[in-house]
Amino acid sequence: MHTVHEVVELSGHIIDSWSLPRAWDIIMDRGGNFAVEEMRVGVSKTETSYCRLKIEAPDYEVLERILSEIQQLGAVLTHADNVHTTSVEQQGVLPSKFYSTTNLPTQVRLNGHWVQVEDIEMDVAIVVDEQQGRAFCRPMHEVQIGDQVVTGHEGIRVQPFERNRERETFAFMQSDVSSEKVKVLAIQEIARQMKEVRAHNGKILFVLGPAVIHTGAGRYIAELLRRGYVQVIFGGNAIVTHDVESALFGTSLGVDLSSGEQVEGGHRNHLRAINAIRAVGSLEKAIEVGLLRDGITYEALKHNVPMVLAGSIRDDGPMPGVISDMQAAQHRMREEVRGVEMAIMVASMLHAIATGNVLPAHVHTVVVDINQSVVTKLADRGSFQAAGLVTDAELFLRGLLEALS
Amino acid sequence: MHTVHEVVELSGHIIDSWSLPRAWDIIMDRGGNFAVEEMRVGVSKTETSYCRLKIEAPDYEVLERILSEIQQLGAVLTHADNVHTTSVEQQGVLPSKFYSTTNLPTQVRLNGHWVQVEDIEMDVAIVVDEQQGRAFCRPMHEVQIGDQVVTGHEGIRVQPFERNRERETFAFMQSDVSSEKVKVLAIQEIARQMKEVRAHNGKILFVLGPAVIHTGAGRYIAELLRRGYVQVIFGGNAIVTHDVESALFGTSLGVDLSSGEQVEGGHRNHLRAINAIRAVGSLEKAIEVGLLRDGITYEALKHNVPMVLAGSIRDDGPMPGVISDMQAAQHRMREEVRGVEMAIMVASMLHAIATGNVLPAHVHTVVVDINQSVVTKLADRGSFQAAGLVTDAELFLRGLLEALS
Amino acid sequence: MHTVHEVVELSGHIIDSWSLPRAWDIIMDRGGNFAVEEMRVGVSKTETSYCRLKIEAPDYEVLERILSEIQQLGAVLTHADNVHTTSVEQQGVLPSKFYSTTNLPTQVRLNGHWVQVEDIEMDVAIVVDEQQGRAFCRPMHEVQIGDQVVTGHEGIRVQPFERNRERETFAFMQSDVSSEKVKVLAIQEIARQMKEVRAHNGKILFVLGPAVIHTGAGRYIAELLRRGYVQVIFGGNAIVTHDVESALFGTSLGVDLSSGEQVEGGHRNHLRAINAIRAVGSLEKAIEVGLLRDGITYEALKHNVPMVLAGSIRDDGPMPGVISDMQAAQHRMREEVRGVEMAIMVASMLHAIATGNVLPAHVHTVVVDINQSVVTKLADRGSFQAAGLVTDAELFLRGLLEALS
Amino acid sequence: MHTVHEVVELSGHIIDSWSLPRAWDIIMDRGGNFAVEEMRVGVSKTETSYCRLKIEAPDYEVLERILSEIQQLGAVLTHADNVHTTSVEQQGVLPSKFYSTTNLPTQVRLNGHWVQVEDIEMDVAIVVDEQQGRAFCRPMHEVQIGDQVVTGHEGIRVQPFERNRERETFAFMQSDVSSEKVKVLAIQEIARQMKEVRAHNGKILFVLGPAVIHTGAGRYIAELLRRGYVQVIFGGNAIVTHDVESALFGTSLGVDLSSGEQVEGGHRNHLRAINAIRAVGSLEKAIEVGLLRDGITYEALKHNVPMVLAGSIRDDGPMPGVISDMQAAQHRMREEVRGVEMAIMVASMLHAIATGNVLPAHVHTVVVDINQSVVTKLADRGSFQAAGLVTDAELFLRGLLEALS
Repeated sequence: MHTVHEVVELSGHIIDSWSLPRAWDIIMDRGGNFAVEEMRVGVSKTETSYCRLKIEAPDYEVLERILSEIQQLGAVLTHADNVHTTSVEQQGVLPSKFYSTTNLPTQVRLNGHWVQVEDIEMDVAIVVDEQQGRAFCRPMHEVQIGDQVVTGHEGIRVQPFERNRERETFAFMQSDVSSEKVKVLAIQEIARQMKEVRAHNGKILFVLGPAVIHTGAGRYIAELLRRGYVQVIFGGNAIVTHDVESALFGTSLGVDLSSGEQVEGGHRNHLRAINAIRAVGSLEKAIEVGLLRDGITYEALKHNVPMVLAGSIRDDGPMPGVISDMQAAQHRMREEVRGVEMAIMVASMLHAIATGNVLPAHVHTVVVDINQSVVTKLADRGSFQAAGLVTDAELFLRGLLEALS
Repeated sequence: MHTVHEVVELSGHIIDSWSLPRAWDIIMDRGGNFAVEEMRVGVSKTETSYCRLKIEAPDYEVLERILSEIQQLGAVLTHADNVHTTSVEQQGVLPSKFYSTTNLPTQVRLNGHWVQVEDIEMDVAIVVDEQQGRAFCRPMHEVQIGDQVVTGHEGIRVQPFERNRERETFAFMQSDVSSEKVKVLAIQEIARQMKEVRAHNGKILFVLGPAVIHTGAGRYIAELLRRGYVQVIFGGNAIVTHDVESALFGTSLGVDLSSGEQVEGGHRNHLRAINAIRAVGSLEKAIEVGLLRDGITYEALKHNVPMVLAGSIRDDGPMPGVISDMQAAQHRMREEVRGVEMAIMVASMLHAIATGNVLPAHVHTVVVDINQSVVTKLADRGSFQAAGLVTDAELFLRGLLEALS
Repeated sequence: MHTVHEVVELSGHIIDSWSLPRAWDIIMDRGGNFAVEEMRVGVSKTETSYCRLKIEAPDYEVLERILSEIQQLGAVLTHADNVHTTSVEQQGVLPSKFYSTTNLPTQVRLNGHWVQVEDIEMDVAIVVDEQQGRAFCRPMHEVQIGDQVVTGHEGIRVQPFERNRERETFAFMQSDVSSEKVKVLAIQEIARQMKEVRAHNGKILFVLGPAVIHTGAGRYIAELLRRGYVQVIFGGNAIVTHDVESALFGTSLGVDLSSGEQVEGGHRNHLRAINAIRAVGSLEKAIEVGLLRDGITYEALKHNVPMVLAGSIRDDGPMPGVISDMQAAQHRMREEVRGVEMAIMVASMLHAIATGNVLPAHVHTVVVDINQSVVTKLADRGSFQAAGLVTDAELFLRGLLEALS
Repeated sequence: MHTVHEVVELSGHIIDSWSLPRAWDIIMDRGGNFAVEEMRVGVSKTETSYCRLKIEAPDYEVLERILSEIQQLGAVLTHADNVHTTSVEQQGVLPSKFYSTTNLPTQVRLNGHWVQVEDIEMDVAIVVDEQQGRAFCRPMHEVQIGDQVVTGHEGIRVQPFERNRERETFAFMQSDVSSEKVKVLAIQEIARQMKEVRAHNGKILFVLGPAVIHTGAGRYIAELLRRGYVQVIFGGNAIVTHDVESALFGTSLGVDLSSGEQVEGGHRNHLRAINAIRAVGSLEKAIEVGLLRDGITYEALKHNVPMVLAGSIRDDGPMPGVISDMQAAQHRMREEVRGVEMAIMVASMLHAIATGNVLPAHVHTVVVDINQSVVTKLADRGSFQAAGLVTDAELFLRGLLEALS
């Protein structure tokens, strides 16, 4: 049988990061085969390992597919060529063989040098500026005619995460997403890491769903804002609306947050809240005129914490400040996500997924939801850094605040 | 103790629709009291009942709240005055005492006559055109300076649903949202009603989530389209993208739909699908040039079935045809929802909630999802016409097609 | 058309307990009809209401079914006859027309007097001792030849719950089972009521699932035991086994409870725990010899709090003290359930359902689970006294302890 | 630093079964280290691989733990000694260093020969009969004084599953437990394999929960019984009770299975069903006298298919034939599980877990439930042979019957 082949190298913590066995798996699952040409296992924990594999495949198509997948595990072609690019010919349309990113640190080879791709995120293209020797992530709809887009597999290097054997912040949470774990420990770890991030002025992002308000946990976020633990907030129309409803009327969806009783039938109060802010013109103005005096929005604006509020098809109103155009909203999220070191997503599905789409893998991400399937969906997005906590948002935030004190 | 009072009437099937006991409940829960001034119970199933209640409350605020809530159950002030309106003074801002709608048939009293509010939906305002003697629903952001918006409680009449004691299509499903029911019976009932709607050329709306494609059930929707059982489709970027991915590459999120195997690593195929359509310019063009040859989108466009595709913050691409602006997308949904008699929502949460927001209560709505909490959330929106089915979308659609044959 | 009829009376808080509308509903759902012969609505909150209904049905079978159902809502035949009984002829077999109980307070008419049925629970028979003028609940398998078992509908009076309009402990939780509520308020209410029960030396029952141990919350139950807030515990082999595993090895299912790490592969530690107790003979002996020094079991035995540990088909071991025979275990539960005023069920499904089966409706029951469907299943068993909390067991117990301090 | 070490070998499909990387992982996670002394990777799919590892650990305790865990992956000490045993000194109590089984094929070395352990199941002890040269699984409570129980790690060999790269029945289902998969394909595969098992007269076990009856799917199981696709049934009091209720009264929990309507209030019919069978004495007698004429129980008894019905603490009745003692029930399950090649568990949690406890890993197991967390819990029990299907039990069984036709 005629076959085609290629030689790749993997190096680093390829044993305990599972990169090596996963690469073997992919090769065989996709119909290829391999021979281990050289293998060195690091004899101590800090020493790295190395493996050179000869990959065989029945045809070029299979070989390409294998290479494209094991590249995401850090495999590099041994004959490291420069990256290939193709010119964009139609605005918002990629060349057909475009390379689609992962959210892992990625380098491309330009003029014989490995160059880091800036603002890495997953499922986008890479545009190269050869003159400046730089490479950038670019979503499909933003590519312009003439942009040099990376295509094929040559000259691309992905750095997979290396699992740290030492006491690792999120290690014990990553093993399994479950409600049957000691969450108090997890909360303490998250608090410890938040302090660490803030100790060097790092950015912490909160992604919040409206249940944070419905459960009366808005006060904990407000306190986190006052204490400087929140540098940016992502959310939607619902969280800001119910936050304002709660500040103006003491209710959330008509339920009195201090007694738990339904004091108002149906949805009228949240419409009144939106209407009141629309009447004064903006959230900022509402604070200025003394209409809005507490809550998450109030504290965020008072402390210059940017809120990116993305609209959705189910919105009433919307509240002033909510971005109705989805491309514009994504653009704002991409701007604000820069420099984020830690992301805490609470009781949100839509905005949490959207945030996960634009976060680099190295951001320590905590997903908190009472619904196991939401946590599984969000935490299972291929990065070693996402920790899922199946627990109650309200009690989690309360415990987090305690652990931070 | 000084109290205030008001006399209201309820009539119709107020016993078996529970309107009467619910009204009593609200009065007492909100801190009021009542005396039954007159009560006549219909002695046969077809005969209606009547009750006149004198409501007492400690102050006007409580009385107002009670009236506002029992109005939604059909209570009408005995001294039926004309509806009150207030003029809009700022664009997109309602007068502060605006009446907020339910999705039930609603009438307002103009010049001594009861006039039906057009295009009823919930949580919006009513704008009155006194000269033409008409009244319309209007979302907050669409009100214009000078619009006469209904305020207060006078001259408003809501017609609650009357539960039909005879064999009722959805009766047995409404009793409880559960996976532990005989779903084959439910499917047969739904099929029967679809045929009934189509027999008089009524409109059936499908709201579809991407799991319809992932589970290989796209073929059933395509067949329903060919057989004329779908008059309009609501969905998002994901359903159309995976539908096109499946038509172009035979995969959905990289999983081969004919073998169930992952044939492509990660998300590349769906990006390729979007890119391919962007390259030709539109979905329509893709059919024209022979690129898109089957699937839901293909059949919908071939049969002139409108698809309203609303974007969301988590979208890649987006696919041409997806509306990025949320107000624009809601506007399109409101246009297409007119005349819909039956709505079938399958494996969708975001778009199903959005659709529920603009549907009048009389539309027979079926919510199908494997996740009980989704079904509960969607079916529990206060209308008697929503039936929830906790079941598998794929097997449901397959069974529905069989039942229609 | 020839019809049959019967006249019944309902009295008490039949309006706001919804007894009356529910009775009307049942009559019509089952194919009957009714006329309101007399109706008096209490004009103040404390005043009761009264309604006399004439029920018509097409035949005796339908009439019987209607009577049997509305009886559970408190309807009493106006011609209050003595209760009818039939003699048991075969051990463990009821007469075919046996009356099946609800868990509501129930009286039977013996010799012209209404007599309270003792130890009421649902789905069992009533055995009458006419000479002593007493009536008892008796599960099917315990009836003996010659027992006089209540049959038919005559002379039976069920007292439905009357919803209290005043500030009611569980009122706001009963409205809806949801994770999107202010749980801190609910926890405070539960704590308040626990103190109230203990203030008059009432019994509080805890039903516990193994997740209590897996999440490290065993310490909170131990502390509740020390503080005297637990009078009886129901559970199974798993809770006691993991509690002992945790006391002996610091792990639960092999996970170190102080670090959250898996320190032991698989299930070995829990088998070792069972084996160690079997070796000394009993849990009591294990404490005596100093093997078992802390945990729930230790505290329970130290404080003479009875634990009824019912085995199940999935058990390893079992741990000494676990009852293997199901009838024997139910018998023990029935003994210990006497006098219980409050039941708190945490992270248990099997034992919680079993407990629900033997609890009278007046026991204030709190069901805590992170899984909405479990809470719905348990809280929806027809009593007004069950409050469901969709939340995290660990954080709930921690918060409860705080609220009690 | 002083360390201890041991040399082990792994051979077979250790690359693609992930045995090798998992062994590496465990060694490092538990605080050890390793050097690859020799490694040969099979160059073709059928060729096996071999690896000899030198394991280092800081002390004997850590080394023991590592060996105990990697043994379950097939690692064998190179200096293969005979198995060590210790004599039981107290009935029902194991020696403290007892070896706890996995459900994988296991051999022990007796007099220099590797002997297969009979009736392998997980979490039990191994008792050796040296004279006969045989080894058996024995649950803790069944060991007798004098039994030679395997202790330590010497002379034990576990054979892990080797993942088959060729088209594998359950391969595509094992990748992920999800409702978002093409279930029609999965159903066809299951049907294909059932036919294969029956072609050589293999045994198929069904484990059934009561929702099978509530959803009207009992008829499909009855048909599977008639067609010879069911050789043994495991279940509880509920499934048999509702099956008989359905046969006698056409209802399940009082819901009419042909109309979906609640025809009887509450639970009376299921109590009547139990009572009726108790009156005639047994299920067999009920068939004999013509009382029981169809349903699962009827067909099972008619076709001599054994039903093991294990009681539980939440049972009413119980129905004659239900085993009340848990040890007796487990014993019966162990007897009937012998020779089972395929196990299909539908809508059951308690009995499915109990069955999983006694099934050897090689049995192809399908877990079907609409609740993802149930499927995850059951399918995640460490064997390569369990496939989870998050879908509707009723529609699954209907589709399975179609696929078998």
